[in-house]
Amino acid sequence: MEIKLLDGKYKEYEGQQVELFGWIRNKRNGKNISFLNINDGTCFKTVQVVYKKLSNQDEIEKSHLGAGLKIVGNIVISDNEKQPYEVKAISIEVLAPSKEDYPLQPKKHTYEFLREIAHLRARTNTFNAVFRIRSVLSYAIHDYFNREGFLMVHSPIITSSDAEGAGEMFQLTTLDLEKDIPKDDEGNVNYKKDFFGKKASLTVTGQLQAEAFALAFNKIYTFGPTFRAENSNTTRHAAEFWMLEPEISFANLDDLIELAKNMLIYVVDYVLKNAPDELNFLNQVKGEDVDIIERLEQLVNANFTRITYASAVEQLESIVASGYKFENEVYFGVDLATEHEKYLTDVIYKSPVFVTDYPKEIKAFYMRNNDDGKTVAACDLLVPGIGELIGGSQREERIDVLIDKMKEHNLDPKEYEWYIKIREYGGVDHAGFGLGFERLIMYVTGMENIRDVIPFPRTTRSCEF
Amino acid sequence: MEIKLLDGKYKEYEGQQVELFGWIRNKRNGKNISFLNINDGTCFKTVQVVYKKLSNQDEIEKSHLGAGLKIVGNIVISDNEKQPYEVKAISIEVLAPSKEDYPLQPKKHTYEFLREIAHLRARTNTFNAVFRIRSVLSYAIHDYFNREGFLMVHSPIITSSDAEGAGEMFQLTTLDLEKDIPKDDEGNVNYKKDFFGKKASLTVTGQLQAEAFALAFNKIYTFGPTFRAENSNTTRHAAEFWMLEPEISFANLDDLIELAKNMLIYVVDYVLKNAPDELNFLNQVKGEDVDIIERLEQLVNANFTRITYASAVEQLESIVASGYKFENEVYFGVDLATEHEKYLTDVIYKSPVFVTDYPKEIKAFYMRNNDDGKTVAACDLLVPGIGELIGGSQREERIDVLIDKMKEHNLDPKEYEWYIKIREYGGVDHAGFGLGFERLIMYVTGMENIRDVIPFPRTTRSCEF
Repeated sequence: MEIKLLDGKYKEYEGQQVELFGWIRNKRNGKNISFLNINDGTCFKTVQVVYKKLSNQDEIEKSHLGAGLKIVGNIVISDNEKQPYEVKAISIEVLAPSKEDYPLQPKKHTYEFLREIAHLRARTNTFNAVFRIRSVLSYAIHDYFNREGFLMVHSPIITSSDAEGAGEMFQLTTLDLEKDIPKDDEGNVNYKKDFFGKKASLTVTGQLQAEAFALAFNKIYTFGPTFRAENSNTTRHAAEFWMLEPEISFANLDDLIELAKNMLIYVVDYVLKNAPDELNFLNQVKGEDVDIIERLEQLVNANFTRITYASAVEQLESIVASGYKFENEVYFGVDLATEHEKYLTDVIYKSPVFVTDYPKEIKAFYMRNNDDGKTVAACDLLVPGIGELIGGSQREERIDVLIDKMKEHNLDPKEYEWYIKIREYGGVDHAGFGLGFERLIMYVTGMENIRDVIPFPRTTRSCEF
Repeated sequence: MEIKLLDGKYKEYEGQQVELFGWIRNKRNGKNISFLNINDGTCFKTVQVVYKKLSNQDEIEKSHLGAGLKIVGNIVISDNEKQPYEVKAISIEVLAPSKEDYPLQPKKHTYEFLREIAHLRARTNTFNAVFRIRSVLSYAIHDYFNREGFLMVHSPIITSSDAEGAGEMFQLTTLDLEKDIPKDDEGNVNYKKDFFGKKASLTVTGQLQAEAFALAFNKIYTFGPTFRAENSNTTRHAAEFWMLEPEISFANLDDLIELAKNMLIYVVDYVLKNAPDELNFLNQVKGEDVDIIERLEQLVNANFTRITYASAVEQLESIVASGYKFENEVYFGVDLATEHEKYLTDVIYKSPVFVTDYPKEIKAFYMRNNDDGKTVAACDLLVPGIGELIGGSQREERIDVLIDKMKEHNLDPKEYEWYIKIREYGGVDHAGFGLGFERLIMYVTGMENIRDVIPFPRTTRSCEF
């Protein structure tokens, strides 16, 4: 019988003969008896295999870390609390040897070094834990929205519009850059010769299309890759990242805040329940600075605070007046910096905080104008230790207001005709938010560099593997 | 109390006062009493609302199709079998009016016309059904792999390698095409000036990266968008489509075939159980030519046949010898055409058929060479009425053979160094397949144009919305 290394399942197989397939994580050759630590990839833990006097004893003892083995043996319960089960091998077959220069030796490797070997780093404890949590979180998101009756929409990756109006998009082309670029009569690039017959780019958000589907299916979400050609070489920016964007109809900002809160609690609770070994390990790696499990448990049980941007600024201003120094200025109209956000969550409220009603100048064109003429029905969710995790808004459904806002943002309403049109036919109140998936993973795992939560990260000047 | 239009739930609310939010699908104004058909997007069905002598009776009767309403009323059970429940309105509020030129009138629209209004077509019965099935299938896939303990990997979209060696990739750039393209000393494009410092493209498959993760996590899958800059204006080609690619370690072609079969049965069974209204409707649209539900039920209960490519060709050759005419030639070495595939599934076997061991010349470089020196350990799953649905293989794990195969395919092994390297350290037998998600949706829904199963399709010369 073949068993997989699923946690706590060994006991069921006590005394039985089993077949195991896995890779050597660690080994120890003894005089009379030798040991292997085997991981088969299906769970975080390894299992100890003891073997002696096998016909190929020498071959196995000389096998390098990373080798792939088939082990036939018996599960025995041991006294060792840390290693409550082990496998006494009857036979071990080397299915795929490993070379002596296997880079993952049982010592501490820097994240920088491991990034250089992204094709192998998932075999280390840390990245095994991180990428399993990534997978668990991804499933938890689908699970939540499925339970809540949301439709999953695959919004397009290739686009001919610039939804955020922010520029910084990757252009897509099949024109041969080694040859002369075809030009039109006015000397501009003749995109009629390009694949789509027009200029095309990689999307920065699926929101505009999500709105069209929310006005058909009521509750929908998109969850897919988005792109920024931002020349920022920081620990928080990647050129390619995944974004979750739910959109709900017959809904205002209050409904959206309720959704964001419930969704976040669900997925964090889900990962606490479904990846305890991984979280425990990462907590140890993290050391005493931050207890990531405690942080997650607090979030699940937290009272989420809700304040307006104006009130947040007022409070921060009074902190400054009392002598506290921020690196960045605080005044009505400023985009709050991470230090401000953390002060709100970590010092003032000690809880997750929804900040609402931001000045319209610092928010996107599609956010609904409030009656005060100054602010929009937007919300950011700030969480302790991290800052902004979610940003959302009610959408501007009034066509004349929307067109004015586009113009204020230097966007040409003609290029958004279909987006405007959906409001002409039953364009009810609707709202949505965006959650940067990598930021959620960083929050949950405690990893501090976005490059370490993406299997094969793409950043400025880096597109390896 | 607010209720949503979930199938069969009305009965629970019999006699109760409810709040409904939805859009007018159809309407009928009577002398004493008027009727609305309301759909709220959360399910396929509509509900009938009857109203009379409301304070804003005139406003509602004059409302156009598509308008968004809030209805307060009582659920009453009616005698009408087709409409077993209706809502007797107490009040109706027009939340968002619709213009008179609303293009979705209660008559038959062509798919061609509806493609022109992709921002609205999800509000029709057909596209409501298609996109809900798309969502249900997507969830079913995640659900299956989660149950089976697979890790979900987000493989990169941006790549610097050409995994299939097929060309036809979209290039990605932040160079300004309106200006002079920077050149190096040899007169070629100087990609050091581009965003990634090298030439970058949109991926055609996540498989190579999936293999690296399968050799760490044992059982993994990727499910994301892939791209082809193929200049094919057909009903089956799109520039952007989603692909499912599982990859399993310690596994050979037999294991892979078992996985493909079990997975397909699971997701088809899931959609039969979770989207019966949508399937019934699409079956009616389809008319008497094809019974899509019967086809799906047969698949779930089918004995999947397995034959070698050589045997398939032999059988087709003998059919030709007996006088049957195919449009395309059949001989050992030919890539089977859809008519050949359909003949195997629909006429000879009357079941899904796995065809294995294709000639190596017509398959990708990474497929494992068989000992006969002529064929590879590949499999295609052909299904009745459609042809190829899944293509997979065991992967070539022998480094020397792999390098030879790359050269035969005119690929430079230096560009695949990391891909070769993963085999040096416990590169056990592994295998994987690719399933074009849109082809699956077309199979399940009976839709015949790939443009009609993608929310906002991108095809040659078309990148609207």
